[in-house]
Amino acid sequence: MKIVIKNAWILTMNEQMEQFPNGYIITAEERILDVGSMESMPNDITYDQCIDAKGAILLPGMVNTHTHIGMIPFRSLGDDYPDRLRRFLFPLENECMNEQLAYASAKYAIAEMQLAGVTTFFDMYYFEQQLAEAAEEMHSRGILAETVIDSVTVDVPEPMGGLQYAQRFIPKWQENSRIQASVAPHAPYSNTIEVLQQADALSKRYDVPWMMHVSEMDFEMDKFRNERNQSPIEFLEDIGVLSSRLVAAHCILLSDHDIELLKKYDVKVAHCIGANTKSAKGVARVRDLLSAGIAVGLGTDGPSSGNTLDLFSQMRLFANFHKTYLRDRSAFPADEIVRLATIGGANVLGMQKQIGSIEAGKQADFILVETDSVNMYPIFDPYSALVYSANAGNVSDVFIAGKQVVAGKKLVDFDEVQLRAELAEAMEQCRFKTKALKAME
Amino acid sequence: MKIVIKNAWILTMNEQMEQFPNGYIITAEERILDVGSMESMPNDITYDQCIDAKGAILLPGMVNTHTHIGMIPFRSLGDDYPDRLRRFLFPLENECMNEQLAYASAKYAIAEMQLAGVTTFFDMYYFEQQLAEAAEEMHSRGILAETVIDSVTVDVPEPMGGLQYAQRFIPKWQENSRIQASVAPHAPYSNTIEVLQQADALSKRYDVPWMMHVSEMDFEMDKFRNERNQSPIEFLEDIGVLSSRLVAAHCILLSDHDIELLKKYDVKVAHCIGANTKSAKGVARVRDLLSAGIAVGLGTDGPSSGNTLDLFSQMRLFANFHKTYLRDRSAFPADEIVRLATIGGANVLGMQKQIGSIEAGKQADFILVETDSVNMYPIFDPYSALVYSANAGNVSDVFIAGKQVVAGKKLVDFDEVQLRAELAEAMEQCRFKTKALKAME
Repeated sequence: MKIVIKNAWILTMNEQMEQFPNGYIITAEERILDVGSMESMPNDITYDQCIDAKGAILLPGMVNTHTHIGMIPFRSLGDDYPDRLRRFLFPLENECMNEQLAYASAKYAIAEMQLAGVTTFFDMYYFEQQLAEAAEEMHSRGILAETVIDSVTVDVPEPMGGLQYAQRFIPKWQENSRIQASVAPHAPYSNTIEVLQQADALSKRYDVPWMMHVSEMDFEMDKFRNERNQSPIEFLEDIGVLSSRLVAAHCILLSDHDIELLKKYDVKVAHCIGANTKSAKGVARVRDLLSAGIAVGLGTDGPSSGNTLDLFSQMRLFANFHKTYLRDRSAFPADEIVRLATIGGANVLGMQKQIGSIEAGKQADFILVETDSVNMYPIFDPYSALVYSANAGNVSDVFIAGKQVVAGKKLVDFDEVQLRAELAEAMEQCRFKTKALKAME
Repeated sequence: MKIVIKNAWILTMNEQMEQFPNGYIITAEERILDVGSMESMPNDITYDQCIDAKGAILLPGMVNTHTHIGMIPFRSLGDDYPDRLRRFLFPLENECMNEQLAYASAKYAIAEMQLAGVTTFFDMYYFEQQLAEAAEEMHSRGILAETVIDSVTVDVPEPMGGLQYAQRFIPKWQENSRIQASVAPHAPYSNTIEVLQQADALSKRYDVPWMMHVSEMDFEMDKFRNERNQSPIEFLEDIGVLSSRLVAAHCILLSDHDIELLKKYDVKVAHCIGANTKSAKGVARVRDLLSAGIAVGLGTDGPSSGNTLDLFSQMRLFANFHKTYLRDRSAFPADEIVRLATIGGANVLGMQKQIGSIEAGKQADFILVETDSVNMYPIFDPYSALVYSANAGNVSDVFIAGKQVVAGKKLVDFDEVQLRAELAEAMEQCRFKTKALKAME
């Protein structure tokens, strides 16, 4: 299958940040064969499909570096309560979450991400075997990591049983070209040292990135300071689990020494500005992380924390928060923010050789953002338009590994109405809504 | 003309914050006749049109309390430059802005606002007679205020000539039911005391709100401190122009005494969180303003400052910034933010008896937000869905003074493609794009 897309405003996001204001891209099977300016497009090419982008912006598929796709049922539930985790989320999760619900939620979440231009994601939740199957079925790209935590959970019978789950789960996906399975200890404080070390070893053995919430909570900082006179990151170094395979989510509360350690061990950071600020936790030191040479990507967090799974709202929040935080309107110009959402995220997931930029030989993961809607005119700078004007609804077409999954703002192989009905049915089965409304009384 | 809308999730935004999860509304000509729960809908009503909202959220039209609708041509131009005003905006405005361009921009901007659910706005720019005509033509509701500044501008031949413009302009619109004309001194530092007093007198004579940028800039604060040992607001009190007719835009830099003065004179505040934080100026003390009993509404600022003219992106930025600023995730729950975008804005514009809530007798200004899109499910709290999940693209239907201006996400009486073509033509006439791109070199 050979596809040509012409007349697109192409942002390659390559090292030189090359642009083709009127460009073409040719894909063959799952890869990009060629990209360039319309003037230099070969006129003897053969193809199976040709799409006229009519001035739409073409950029690499976005990378959501931290999310929880099983949690769609919790969206808009108790958003503004100080004790929402304990009051709503944990009890409902214990009572209602099951294989069927997690799977239906994952399909819905992946649909939402694809429609918003997110082609790759790093997930952390339960029932990850089912979530990986959902991702495979919907032709997404992602890393699915089973949570490990020191309590009985909805899918394992003993505390930290997620580790054994992951041991069985990871090998099953070793041969898949788009899906990787992995492990995700919930946090440094909610696992034993041995389990953290075993999770790191598992990640090393199968050569997959692993993930953990790190330096996110005030109580987490206090606990490590009081018990060990260390920061969580100093603790993780101490027990020998910092490496380039670790994706540390949040990292809101970092000392200079923490940043040195992250750099020393080439740890990656998933920055979730929307969730971090909605929960009033603070603004991570992203300028300092990037200046130190640490890989940073954007993440939405789960739909109960960040509500939507698109990176457009994250990019706008990122711009405004970091400019204000640094008291500098010229800090983080729009092109740098689009980098974080694309090649930056690819770096975090260790996939920079496969995805994150539009270059011949890379995987054909890219999106078209239409410029016909009223919010998208005029455009003097396409990066500005993406960061300050666009929203998820402007994404018109999405390709993953050379296959079109969204065309004209609709899923190609799935029906949104059907996916919602399946999720509603799974929620009904466990009486999710009834129990949620009761908890809100 | 009598219209019935049924099966809507109605958020009345009245004093009691009454909701009808399955409700109806009946309008007669420009007013709301009745609102209630479907169970209690009279079954003998006659109507000209009946719309089944199918579960969409119905709320009052949003009020954009501060914008510059003539500035669409500047969108995405030099967003991240520290000196963008002097480098791009002022020279291009001087060279290119004219009656035709301002009018075409205004129609485009009003289309954008209507499609995003903004039914009322308070504008400040040049050529306000043309902008008022655009608003009238498009059946919007608004206050259009001519800028007064101590320099020659694109529509007046001498410094502060906007005042004379306003003197001629305001009386022309006295009889209009939806459009009010007014005056807007640019800022306390860019006008003489006499002109500020005359602007206040003009507002008083014709009983219309007037507007000014106040306490927005660091240099503004320094100037008044150095020259008069006062804050800008203390200065405005001193010269006798603080009143309930004044809408002070921005108010980022306020002392406790400033807040006391705003309260004492019942001054209104237009809060522009998006523009204020994109430009790294800071976060206004909105919690303190509201606690003091001061009316606060949301504003987008112009499309060159805030980029989009919708209040959904403002609501989400508002939530995240103010929660983080106050270090309290439960601060400003979503319903309070929707209040600011609706009845709060109506209070700021002195229109709270006409608009801002769904109540019998009020003007029929309301919008439907569809809940079919993938980002809008599930909904346990409709306010949460509006603030944390929705974007401008979710607005499906808009009514102003009983007339439907948007149906099924499309303008009813205007063609977006045509409006864009007219704007492009006006930009082409003055070679706007060529000059803009040259400035960016």
